[in-house]
Formats: sequence, structure tokens, C-alpha cells
Amino acid sequence: MKKAVVLLSGGLDSTTVLYLAKSQGYEVYAMSFDYGQRHKKEIQCAKDIASGAGAAEFVLVTTNMNVWGGSALTDDSIKVPEFNEESEKIPVTYVPARNMIFLSYAASYAEAIGAYDIFIGVSEVDYSGYVDCRHEFIDSMEKTINLGTVCAVEHKKYIKIHAPFLHKTKSEEIKIGMNLGVKYEKTWTCYNGEKFACGICDSCRLRLKAFKEAGYKDPIKYKGEK
Amino acid sequence: MKKAVVLLSGGLDSTTVLYLAKSQGYEVYAMSFDYGQRHKKEIQCAKDIASGAGAAEFVLVTTNMNVWGGSALTDDSIKVPEFNEESEKIPVTYVPARNMIFLSYAASYAEAIGAYDIFIGVSEVDYSGYVDCRHEFIDSMEKTINLGTVCAVEHKKYIKIHAPFLHKTKSEEIKIGMNLGVKYEKTWTCYNGEKFACGICDSCRLRLKAFKEAGYKDPIKYKGEK
Repeated sequence: MKKAVVLLSGGLDSTTVLYLAKSQGYEVYAMSFDYGQRHKKEIQCAKDIASGAGAAEFVLVTTNMNVWGGSALTDDSIKVPEFNEESEKIPVTYVPARNMIFLSYAASYAEAIGAYDIFIGVSEVDYSGYVDCRHEFIDSMEKTINLGTVCAVEHKKYIKIHAPFLHKTKSEEIKIGMNLGVKYEKTWTCYNGEKFACGICDSCRLRLKAFKEAGYKDPIKYKGEK
Repeated sequence: MKKAVVLLSGGLDSTTVLYLAKSQGYEVYAMSFDYGQRHKKEIQCAKDIASGAGAAEFVLVTTNMNVWGGSALTDDSIKVPEFNEESEKIPVTYVPARNMIFLSYAASYAEAIGAYDIFIGVSEVDYSGYVDCRHEFIDSMEKTINLGTVCAVEHKKYIKIHAPFLHKTKSEEIKIGMNLGVKYEKTWTCYNGEKFACGICDSCRLRLKAFKEAGYKDPIKYKGEK
């Protein structure tokens, strides 16, 4: 059975990608990151999702990216915005070079376990300043991985980065995921790590909009909902 | 003053690079990694070297790359070889994609502090299976960084990876370092983290050979030396 490393945040995109990789016959090795996000809830979600989807392994990378800050997700001194009015600008939730770091770890893990496929749930359709979600970046990263790993350079066994949602909207993703039986009730999207999702942060708004467009009701419970 | 991020392991190469960056007028921001190496001695050395050389900041990234193993430096079940007889093969001290991970962090740090220069002490002359020490990899990584960071994509302020010793031997490096006043007595190369360097591991042998070729006496003390 072919092995695949799946970058899994516990959110909607990466969870759908995990199910997609499984449906394509891969034995999935899930990799998540604890990098000083404000809340640990999405890490627990990622673990539960990996286990529920029958992943062969769940690896949690812990690291302190927050020491050099620059992001509302890791820097306690920056307030998370409830609504990003200037959506043309880089959102303050940006962690510099985050996907580059994630994909480098995924390449390391892939080489160690003999996997030649890496899955990541980025989309450039919903692009709002996240430069490391664009295909130019993903393509270049794949080239770099194949110049920096022994399997590729010495053994001509190349690593491929699969970004199946690169040109898909979130609502298109949800439709695919629903057909694959993704347990969206287990995913977490809200910037805040409280018991129920807030429903008002940027992230919740995008999620709710996508479910509506896809024609489904979001199965998670929102604050104040009965 | 122009800022530069310097990847500093506390060894001979990266320490020389740090002094070189300083000599070129950069304000240096040193970045080291605690990734589950067997001994912490080189981390303490890196910290002391950064402070002694007047670095503006010293950032220690802690991370658990050792969870997926694959290297004698991070996996306690693999014995570190005293002498690598099959030098054509990949050494067991290889950590998959290590420089890719290090350079991704350096790019993140650089973007956060507004640095456009990253220094790394790799050499492809002493290449022995470390595919991520080759210029093809470094060049590709630089391209990837400039497609994955906001400073480059949005503001056309590109990040350059400087690998000044890419085509230099260790003995050439030492000659340069001696002229720059590098405090080699503060560096650590030995695979073992004991009080004195062992003098017999692969790493010690290469170091001793390089000092001899450069015409200098290695200022660190070796086990059993008077």
C-alpha cells in the first residue's frame, strides 16, 4: 500500500484532504503542528480525526515559531480581528513562511518512512495574502524537496506534493468531502478555542458561507445556537 | 544597518560564517536548533558564540524532529559510528531534509524581523551524501523562499541565501576564520557531548585534518591531551 504524508491541522481543508488521500488508496501518515497557536483545541481535533479516519500514524511536531512572532495566531500581544475589513492586505493571522516550514517537515517525515506523496489542503481561490498557498510556491517547493532529499537525488524516487484543492473553493471542497463521508462535526475552524465556535471571526464566517453555498448545514455547534 | 539571519550550530562552519557576516557589516540575528540532538553542548556553545560575537539576537528553535528518526544524531537506537568506512554512502548521521527545515525557519524569522539575507555554513566540497549541502538545493530553496514570503511576492524585497563556503574546503574556511579572529576554542564539533572532544569520531577527524591542512593547531582540548 502506498504511503502518503498528510498535513493535518484539524480544520476543514486538511480533513477533507485526508479523506481524499484515503479514498485514493493511500495509507495515510498524518502530521500536525503545535507551534504556539493560542489554543490547543485544533490539535486535539486533528488527533481525533486521524484516528477516526484510520490513519496509520499521527505525528505531532512541537515547535516554538512564536518566538519571533509576527502573527495574531501565535503572538498574544496582537488581537485577533473579528472581521478583516481590509481583505486586500495580508491578514494579521499570517505566520511567515508557515507552509514552507510545514512542507519541509513533511518531506523529512516522508523520506524517513519511505513515502513519496505529500498532501496539503491549500487553496489559492480563497487567497487573501497567503503567498504560500499559490501554485507557484507549491511547484517550487516540490522542486526544492526533490533536490534536497536522498530518495530523489540518489535513488530517483521523487516526492510529489498533492494540493487537490488548489483551484477549488471551500464550498466545492465541502461537496467533495460530503461525498467522501468526512466527519465535519469533528473539525475545528474558529480562531478562538472555546467550547463552541464563535461564528463571528473571519474564519467562522468563511466556513459558514462555504457550507451555505455548498447547500449543507454546518454540523458543528455555534455559540448561542440551540 | 542591514540585518542578516545566521544559522548557527555552534560548530566550526557556522561560527566562521557568523564572523564573516559581521565582517561584511551585517547586524547578525543568530538562529539555533534544539531538535533532539543527543547532547545539548553544541547549543550552549552556539549561545556563547553568538553573545561573544555581538549578535543582536539569539533565537533557539526547539522542535522534535527525532520523533520520526532516521538519524544517528537524533535516534538513540542507532549507534554513532566512530569511523565511516563507506564514505560513498549516506552517513547515518543524516537527518532527512534538515537544511530545508532550518532554511524555512530562517526565512520565517527573516521576514518577521525585516532581514533580506540568510547565511548558512554548508559546503559541497566536503559533500558525503548530504544532498542538501549542494548548490542546486540552495539555489532552489532561495527561489522557493522568494515565492513563499510576503516581502518578496508583495513588496519585491527578495531574500538571498549566502553560502560563502559552498565551494571551500574546511581548511580554507579555517584560514579565513583565523583572519577574522574567530574564537575556535568556543566551537564544538564532536558527535559526543562530553567534557572534551573524543578526537576519534568522524566529525573530530575531519576537524583535526582541516586544522592540520590549514597550518594551525586546533585550540580545543581533546580527550587524553595534556
